[in-house]
Amino acid sequence: MQLPNNAQILTLSTPFALEQGGTLTDCQVAYHSFGTLNAAGDNVVWVFHALTANSDPTDWWAGVIGAGSTIDPARHFIVCANVLGSFYGSTCPRSICPETGQPYGLDFPRFTVRDVVALHHQLRQHLGIQRVKIAIGGSFGGHQAMEFAWTAPRVVDSLVLLVTSARETAWSIAIHESQRMAMESDPSFYDNTETAGSIGIQTARAVGLLTYRTIQAYIDTQTDPEPVLSGYRAASYVRYQGKKLLQRFHAHCYWYLAHCLDSHHMGRGRKSIEAALAQLTMPATVIGIDSDQLVPSSEQRFLAAHLPNGQYHEIASAYGHDGFLIEVDAINAILAAHWARL
Amino acid sequence: MQLPNNAQILTLSTPFALEQGGTLTDCQVAYHSFGTLNAAGDNVVWVFHALTANSDPTDWWAGVIGAGSTIDPARHFIVCANVLGSFYGSTCPRSICPETGQPYGLDFPRFTVRDVVALHHQLRQHLGIQRVKIAIGGSFGGHQAMEFAWTAPRVVDSLVLLVTSARETAWSIAIHESQRMAMESDPSFYDNTETAGSIGIQTARAVGLLTYRTIQAYIDTQTDPEPVLSGYRAASYVRYQGKKLLQRFHAHCYWYLAHCLDSHHMGRGRKSIEAALAQLTMPATVIGIDSDQLVPSSEQRFLAAHLPNGQYHEIASAYGHDGFLIEVDAINAILAAHWARL
Repeated sequence: MQLPNNAQILTLSTPFALEQGGTLTDCQVAYHSFGTLNAAGDNVVWVFHALTANSDPTDWWAGVIGAGSTIDPARHFIVCANVLGSFYGSTCPRSICPETGQPYGLDFPRFTVRDVVALHHQLRQHLGIQRVKIAIGGSFGGHQAMEFAWTAPRVVDSLVLLVTSARETAWSIAIHESQRMAMESDPSFYDNTETAGSIGIQTARAVGLLTYRTIQAYIDTQTDPEPVLSGYRAASYVRYQGKKLLQRFHAHCYWYLAHCLDSHHMGRGRKSIEAALAQLTMPATVIGIDSDQLVPSSEQRFLAAHLPNGQYHEIASAYGHDGFLIEVDAINAILAAHWARL
Repeated sequence: MQLPNNAQILTLSTPFALEQGGTLTDCQVAYHSFGTLNAAGDNVVWVFHALTANSDPTDWWAGVIGAGSTIDPARHFIVCANVLGSFYGSTCPRSICPETGQPYGLDFPRFTVRDVVALHHQLRQHLGIQRVKIAIGGSFGGHQAMEFAWTAPRVVDSLVLLVTSARETAWSIAIHESQRMAMESDPSFYDNTETAGSIGIQTARAVGLLTYRTIQAYIDTQTDPEPVLSGYRAASYVRYQGKKLLQRFHAHCYWYLAHCLDSHHMGRGRKSIEAALAQLTMPATVIGIDSDQLVPSSEQRFLAAHLPNGQYHEIASAYGHDGFLIEVDAINAILAAHWARL
């Protein structure tokens, strides 16, 4: 478990029931908050993080979130909660199961994006938050933001959704299944230890990473300057990135979160995706990146077209999906337009 | 070893020396030929196959190669040789090493595209072929075709290169490294048996396959019609494709061939890529596919721009890289224009 600096922990006093069955006793959610809830209770910005990020957006989204940024603790009460199943402090497969006294390991129950969001709402109620001025998230964070709004539409005043989709695409599911296959190929994955799956997670990360930037970015940055017959720069890069994730994450968490992503479907049990999106009548700003090879901008155009109060903005970027973490100036300009709508 | 129907075998009578050192005794090359070499010796079409294909292009490229097709055994002497290291009959890691009496396994020497092509030339000389009217290949087959021409420029009258590149791109190398990591995560990969690496090769195939078609093709064909929380169609597809390759290929062959691909660099030891391409003065037709996510069409435009007699054609296709095996009508139209240039 890697608890970031200044993280707080909420431990639920009642069992937390999951969509697909099973409950978690003493379920915990790690979170960060910045700034102060004002008297009117109308200055909350709730930030939802992406797959392997943590609850400190001033770290991974500096320039968008933080002192002097568009979303500023001097004006806003900013909250970000670590997702269920993550390795950054919330209850996860490496947590101790109160019933057994051992880490859950692969006995951890499966959970969905809706479970993740239900836990966020528990935290929200604990913090006494009645209204969220902006619910904002990119990628998996966008999945959470739209589910967060759907389950509490009168709580969420507006949405900002970046590089996300109304359902997990078949393309993403194919990638995740390849990643799960990679993790399951490592026999240690089935152990219940801190190092379980430490080989396979590196492959899984390498595979995931292929779609985070662009084909051209690999060519531009990883081409060997001189011809070689071994030690290719692109190959070293891939291995290095695998090792980097291993140092900060656990294979079991990565495997469960990949399943969680695949559960995302705004229309499940709600007639249709279109019908579900029609319920989200608050102002919604949807942001796509033209070069995104993981969640293509056609997915964001779909969202904007079906959200009753949706507006679409596209950022031209060489960074692909990762652009949502990098194109800070373009995002801030769009956020300014979003504030003007509220 | 999977020897296709009607394959012939040439066994070299002298040791075959490799670019990076090492020699192969009794080296074999499996091949197919169709039609008859005419008296003038000017009707040869040499076809080079892609990564996991075999030496029978009437099987995997029907419509382009075969009776009634543009390249027709009634008129042409068509030759295709299985690449060194493949599982389809040429010497490979599953071949018996004459020195030990055991399969080579991971003691097989590393080999480059230039080694593959040197073996092709041995077969060419064995068949008494002095001139090749058209050397044609897609993807890895294109790598071979251009090396084949470079090492024997007065032999090759013209080139047709599809979805290929002057060097293996950093993007492709990153994919191959991820695939190698997947294979190496399976402990059985290090065995010297018929089933070695049988788990890892499935993951590696799943990863490779991500780039063979397009993002949209996954979404169009693998989206579940109704919301589900397990048994996703896209996930089943990925697993199925992994199993399919396992039934016809060996992990050691796949691993060595991935290394072979990465060796491709027209400029290695030849001053530069541009200088090497400048030597290929024969008529050259270069074909790209607009939706190719493995070898983007910018790579083919580069080739056409640097081949002194190069012409570029782009095929609009929904099939991505795989389009070179599917867009038969468009390829035949371009081949007709190529014949007209000869």
